[in-house]
Amino acid sequence: MAPPSKSFFAVIAGVGAGTGGAVARRFAQAYPVVLLARSEDSFKDLVAEINGQGGKAIGIAADATDAAAVKSAFESINKELPDFKLAAAVYNVGAGRALKPFLELKSEDLDASLKGNAHGLFNFAQSALPLLLDSVDSSPHPPTLIVTGATASLRGSARFADFAAGKFAVRAITQSLAREFGPKGVHVAHAVIDGGIDIPRLAQYKSRVNDGAPDGMLSPAAIADSYWHLHTQHRSAFTQELDMRPYVEKF
Amino acid sequence: MAPPSKSFFAVIAGVGAGTGGAVARRFAQAYPVVLLARSEDSFKDLVAEINGQGGKAIGIAADATDAAAVKSAFESINKELPDFKLAAAVYNVGAGRALKPFLELKSEDLDASLKGNAHGLFNFAQSALPLLLDSVDSSPHPPTLIVTGATASLRGSARFADFAAGKFAVRAITQSLAREFGPKGVHVAHAVIDGGIDIPRLAQYKSRVNDGAPDGMLSPAAIADSYWHLHTQHRSAFTQELDMRPYVEKF
Amino acid sequence: MAPPSKSFFAVIAGVGAGTGGAVARRFAQAYPVVLLARSEDSFKDLVAEINGQGGKAIGIAADATDAAAVKSAFESINKELPDFKLAAAVYNVGAGRALKPFLELKSEDLDASLKGNAHGLFNFAQSALPLLLDSVDSSPHPPTLIVTGATASLRGSARFADFAAGKFAVRAITQSLAREFGPKGVHVAHAVIDGGIDIPRLAQYKSRVNDGAPDGMLSPAAIADSYWHLHTQHRSAFTQELDMRPYVEKF
Amino acid sequence: MAPPSKSFFAVIAGVGAGTGGAVARRFAQAYPVVLLARSEDSFKDLVAEINGQGGKAIGIAADATDAAAVKSAFESINKELPDFKLAAAVYNVGAGRALKPFLELKSEDLDASLKGNAHGLFNFAQSALPLLLDSVDSSPHPPTLIVTGATASLRGSARFADFAAGKFAVRAITQSLAREFGPKGVHVAHAVIDGGIDIPRLAQYKSRVNDGAPDGMLSPAAIADSYWHLHTQHRSAFTQELDMRPYVEKF
Repeated sequence: MAPPSKSFFAVIAGVGAGTGGAVARRFAQAYPVVLLARSEDSFKDLVAEINGQGGKAIGIAADATDAAAVKSAFESINKELPDFKLAAAVYNVGAGRALKPFLELKSEDLDASLKGNAHGLFNFAQSALPLLLDSVDSSPHPPTLIVTGATASLRGSARFADFAAGKFAVRAITQSLAREFGPKGVHVAHAVIDGGIDIPRLAQYKSRVNDGAPDGMLSPAAIADSYWHLHTQHRSAFTQELDMRPYVEKF
Repeated sequence: MAPPSKSFFAVIAGVGAGTGGAVARRFAQAYPVVLLARSEDSFKDLVAEINGQGGKAIGIAADATDAAAVKSAFESINKELPDFKLAAAVYNVGAGRALKPFLELKSEDLDASLKGNAHGLFNFAQSALPLLLDSVDSSPHPPTLIVTGATASLRGSARFADFAAGKFAVRAITQSLAREFGPKGVHVAHAVIDGGIDIPRLAQYKSRVNDGAPDGMLSPAAIADSYWHLHTQHRSAFTQELDMRPYVEKF
Repeated sequence: MAPPSKSFFAVIAGVGAGTGGAVARRFAQAYPVVLLARSEDSFKDLVAEINGQGGKAIGIAADATDAAAVKSAFESINKELPDFKLAAAVYNVGAGRALKPFLELKSEDLDASLKGNAHGLFNFAQSALPLLLDSVDSSPHPPTLIVTGATASLRGSARFADFAAGKFAVRAITQSLAREFGPKGVHVAHAVIDGGIDIPRLAQYKSRVNDGAPDGMLSPAAIADSYWHLHTQHRSAFTQELDMRPYVEKF
Repeated sequence: MAPPSKSFFAVIAGVGAGTGGAVARRFAQAYPVVLLARSEDSFKDLVAEINGQGGKAIGIAADATDAAAVKSAFESINKELPDFKLAAAVYNVGAGRALKPFLELKSEDLDASLKGNAHGLFNFAQSALPLLLDSVDSSPHPPTLIVTGATASLRGSARFADFAAGKFAVRAITQSLAREFGPKGVHVAHAVIDGGIDIPRLAQYKSRVNDGAPDGMLSPAAIADSYWHLHTQHRSAFTQELDMRPYVEKF
């Protein structure tokens, strides 16, 4: 791993075994990375891995749905990386898929999705955007906020009222941010991940997803490559939204 | 006004000077109508008007964002109209457009929109859907849940992160309900109102909206006519979503 | 049937056993109707039926894909109904679904779809719009051009490249016309018919469509009711697009 | 420039001063490239440039709207590069924007757009897809068909009926191909270019587009970078559609 930038860092919220972790690895090839997750367990191995390979990673336990916790996490970042500017921020927190018939859903189910998706992004973006704006004139690539979406960002399926509500809301916020902050030089992009992600926790489903076709679930590293590409796009050609799905996925 | 049905009623949440009031008037031509609004002031004149013209209207003050209040309102309805079944429910509550740059928005602004739009619909639908399901075999028209959307249901404009989040979430829930309850015989429809509504409160803008063109703002009665049409659609040809806008509106 | 208008007429292109015929019957309750189809066989019984019930119907054989034939049909209309103005025009011509793997499609298959859908609408709209514009100030309802779409208007499914190309193109044209002619007072609407239509020719499929559920295919008369509603919308609340599908349809 | 692949080539239809030329340059860094355009003038300088820099380029004059000419071009390719397989095919032909009020459009205007956009892609894809299928097991990246779209792929604006019809049709075909050939291992992607492209021919508009903001028009090289990224995506995470627009573009 090449030594990371001495001026710019990246922050990823929602780091675990899947997309978030892969994005952290990918961005760590260029920047020190700050990993946020609710529980230290979600990032401690990865922080060790990146630091052990010549990169630089910092993990901070913070619940994105808690505005004060997010603010406090960004204050910690500022202490840890006082001379660094923010080049890229990735919001990859998912929440709230109770998968129940509507009349069995509780208000708390909806709340969990709206908090984890919409409020979490709101909190994260309010802390990240001022830092991204501050990097516009100097960042090696246009400063970038990337947000992870899902099939449910575009479609409210039966039994997905709670989850789709949160994911639709996230897409709304992301569009609004793209329109407000794009002209100021910040690239805001939304990635619709349309398929199962190939993570250990879901390995048991692998033989059933897309009839067990090889590469029938999204590789987190492949998603991360496209996030990195989004970050490096020239400001004359920003992508606001793209989808990603396995070649065998029905859509 | 012809005497209203002696078996079926309609309930409209979010009744005031605009769409909700007009929908109440339109549905009152066929059914007793129950009007819900946070404040009694919003419906008391209309209740009197409808009752004075041979129709039947009941007003109940209830905050849709308060799950207990909605539940209690439906219990009151059951007491007032014990032998009636629900033919149509309209959710027309709007909330949360702080119209501020994103970095000036407060978490409370987002919350107000998510609560008033998504949670309110959730509460209303959880009480209304069991009643609508109960009417499937007997209702003169397929029992119907109609939800009012806005331009911001489809588009997250700059400075609309809060409002669009709520409106996107509502659209997600409505789609999910259509897919779950359609096959059970309940018609769930979403109307995207794309333009300013011609209500007294907005009269001051009238000369500026669409260059002051006549009929340049949506007539609430015209919206109500389309809601009524949605209600009367045959179950072989349900509309899930339609837009409505003034002929002169840019889109 | 009440006697039809003595001042305004409607014209429907693509009349047969399904939507077009039902629309003709529905609009004949208010206006003399002109029925266009490639073959006289498609409309002659219906013309007789409408005229026999106190309505007024004229059938003209014309291929919508043939610009000269469409022009000539409108000249015939002008001779037959010299003192009438056009209140509503409906384009309901479908064409081109070869249902083949892409590499087996012929250029002619694509051409058939583009001609029957896009060119046909183009020809029809070029003749109808000047007449609709001429009715803006006097028509009982805003003069209306309604165009029939399909699932393939929004989605290019596998093996539907030809058909979807034509249907997408029709939607594009309809949107463009709505934006150009709406502000001049002409209502241009697009109906996405998402499901099988309950016509004699498809009766054999009925037991398989949506598991043979009752009303599992769209009733042409139900579609026609919504077309009539579109025609009667107030100009402050034009619908540009709506979908229609059976309550049991997966979507 | 590194020496290009000795096994795989790329073909780009619609090569000139803009996107097509930049895509050719970008893909020439990895593959021999075949450049198709109606006129030799469009590609001869670029062919010389690429060949002069250690790459390999072949230009073939062919009108994409002419099925026989496209077939013949692919036969020429086969003679020139007999031992090469096709890794990537890019359709970048645009046509048909008469920019006239609808009633002034001629049938020929619509035809030019449908031919140049839909038929051209059809012809190109029918020749390219069998070759791409043949590369699935050996290509360094999943064999890819990329199609250039525009704002008018998603929106039929006033006075754009002809152009939007062609661009909507192209999007329909591309979606259908993605669904048919994705599961076979071919990546089919559609790029919505939403803004003016920074090419010499449009330089005169540059001061007016987006108020003359720097990078206010899309850099063709930036578009080409994203096309290359699409080509390199892992088959578990294919993007079917992305948009690209200048940071300052209103949308």
